[in-house]
Amino acid sequence: MRVNGTDYRSIWDQDGQVKIIDQRWLPHEFRTVGIDSRDEFATAIRDMWVRGAPLIGVTAAYGIAREMGRDSSDAALQAAYETFDATRPTAINLRWALDRARAELMPLAPVDRAEAALALARRMADEDVECNRMIGVHGLELIREIAAKKPEGEPVRLLTHCNAGWLATVDWGTATSPMFHAKNAGIAVHVWVDETRPRNQGGLTAWELGAHGVPHTYITDNAGGHLMQEGMVDLVITGTDRTTAQGDVCNKIGTYLKALAAKDNGVPFYVGLPSSTIDWTVRDGLKEIPIEDRSGREVTHIQGTLEDGSIGCVRVTPEGTEGGNPAFDVTPARLITGLITEHGVCDASTEGLASLFPERSA
Amino acid sequence: MRVNGTDYRSIWDQDGQVKIIDQRWLPHEFRTVGIDSRDEFATAIRDMWVRGAPLIGVTAAYGIAREMGRDSSDAALQAAYETFDATRPTAINLRWALDRARAELMPLAPVDRAEAALALARRMADEDVECNRMIGVHGLELIREIAAKKPEGEPVRLLTHCNAGWLATVDWGTATSPMFHAKNAGIAVHVWVDETRPRNQGGLTAWELGAHGVPHTYITDNAGGHLMQEGMVDLVITGTDRTTAQGDVCNKIGTYLKALAAKDNGVPFYVGLPSSTIDWTVRDGLKEIPIEDRSGREVTHIQGTLEDGSIGCVRVTPEGTEGGNPAFDVTPARLITGLITEHGVCDASTEGLASLFPERSA
Repeated sequence: MRVNGTDYRSIWDQDGQVKIIDQRWLPHEFRTVGIDSRDEFATAIRDMWVRGAPLIGVTAAYGIAREMGRDSSDAALQAAYETFDATRPTAINLRWALDRARAELMPLAPVDRAEAALALARRMADEDVECNRMIGVHGLELIREIAAKKPEGEPVRLLTHCNAGWLATVDWGTATSPMFHAKNAGIAVHVWVDETRPRNQGGLTAWELGAHGVPHTYITDNAGGHLMQEGMVDLVITGTDRTTAQGDVCNKIGTYLKALAAKDNGVPFYVGLPSSTIDWTVRDGLKEIPIEDRSGREVTHIQGTLEDGSIGCVRVTPEGTEGGNPAFDVTPARLITGLITEHGVCDASTEGLASLFPERSA
Repeated sequence: MRVNGTDYRSIWDQDGQVKIIDQRWLPHEFRTVGIDSRDEFATAIRDMWVRGAPLIGVTAAYGIAREMGRDSSDAALQAAYETFDATRPTAINLRWALDRARAELMPLAPVDRAEAALALARRMADEDVECNRMIGVHGLELIREIAAKKPEGEPVRLLTHCNAGWLATVDWGTATSPMFHAKNAGIAVHVWVDETRPRNQGGLTAWELGAHGVPHTYITDNAGGHLMQEGMVDLVITGTDRTTAQGDVCNKIGTYLKALAAKDNGVPFYVGLPSSTIDWTVRDGLKEIPIEDRSGREVTHIQGTLEDGSIGCVRVTPEGTEGGNPAFDVTPARLITGLITEHGVCDASTEGLASLFPERSA
């Protein structure tokens, strides 16, 4: 997507170097950096210079490729696998990407591995971009339908929660892809960006939208219900961390509250997702998905830019107050109007998913 | 309520001096201060050393009393009235308190005004305390009923939004009064305290509860829905800024989302209120109550304690991002289980209110 007038991906290779956006400084500062050694790749993943499941996987694939350029032995391949695998132990995409790279490269003669590994990393990046692009193509139609019913010049008002944006993928993002496609297609949109406490990922979404020229307003997580009551939201699109076989959606904490408000006010509520995030082994998200409890400090302390421009942290609670921090919630399928996947849009239901993925719904 | 083992009100007179809790430092520091001159009272109200509609009114009454002790002429009474009236022009309780003081004092001989004004200020303070105490007495019964059905030792888990606490009144608070009463009655409770972005008044509630020894956990505004899904909330009690004749409740932004989640999960949702906040002239809160739009800076910038202990402010958004800040929302009566008033508990409906206030429901 566009930043300062230039089109970027979140990772790319250029003149024999792998470059990333160092996301630790966002949304406050835009920095790109080259990474090369195995340690640099491991650090970039572990310390969240890059973040978001799809992007982490592609970064690891590029890391394998660089390593194969230096030492393409079985031992080096295995060592790189293990190094990267240890960086973010719970990220499923990371393991998936590493397994795929090792499975493709190990059978090859070492002399062929460097080139094959680079080709694979590029292919995985392109696949991610194409998947997200198609989510945008399908989601764009929903926005187009709403725009067609609006008076000339009145924007389609979307609301999103958290950052399911291009920074978490290689390009386009998932929930944001329809928004970027609408902007590129010349359809007037305005996005209400939920702050998304406790980690304020809304700041990343606001940064993405701003950099690409999409009009938006940053709001507290409390505000969306009122905006829907007032008829100021036409469409909600969020991302998802995990979607069940019956269409329940596990996503960033607070998503459920927005879905309730959308239902209560007749506002369509959609979820954008690559089909890779569908967990076909789970049906009832509320009963079956364990919710991660994170550190209370994420709630009681907030990071941002201080008046002198440096990055700092304030405690918002009385000394000693304990914070509770469930990180996700489950939105039952009954509250979801539809799922936007790379294969098309479907009902959030067993039948809906079966219509798009007949091979998976045995 | 208790602070460091001592019982406090938010305003009191002692040895000929009026003392307040200087709330600008809370929840980070507890400071009391004496105020005496007309200018000091005006500053304390205008610059929010004291806050909360009931407390502001009582503070103004004390201000009038101090002024009458120095100069009890008609001109001085009128000047004090005007000075205090200009401090917070939209606070209805302030005008009400000033009107009441002027109406009682003006007919008296100037020589009698100082004593009468002090007696009136004390009476208004006591009336506020008694009103809030009765909200607690009635609300306590709801908590007691839930406690009776729980296994021995398991706390009743409440959730509250914003600060409808004793710091906004003279004592007890409104939504918090049943919680303090339960604690004093030896009933085990635990309170989920909504942060309440953008101004984080949850920090004040956490401070109040902590100082009085009520167990609690500070959570993001996003978390409550998930906690209710998981069966971890037995009862919600919030305050209200304005209640309509049909039982709609206008309260801090985000209250509506919690009411939706309570309804969806069968959790009782109550609102604690002094009957003075019922606006008998309004029926449909959604159609008739205008919602204040406040500065976007309250959303994009957050105040708290820096690592060195000083109070500072961080910007959480990218530079130039605009914040949207509707300050209140309306919770329709259909989502509210009941209203807890000083006269008792009733349904949130025209009929419910008529049963408690027959004289007002002509």
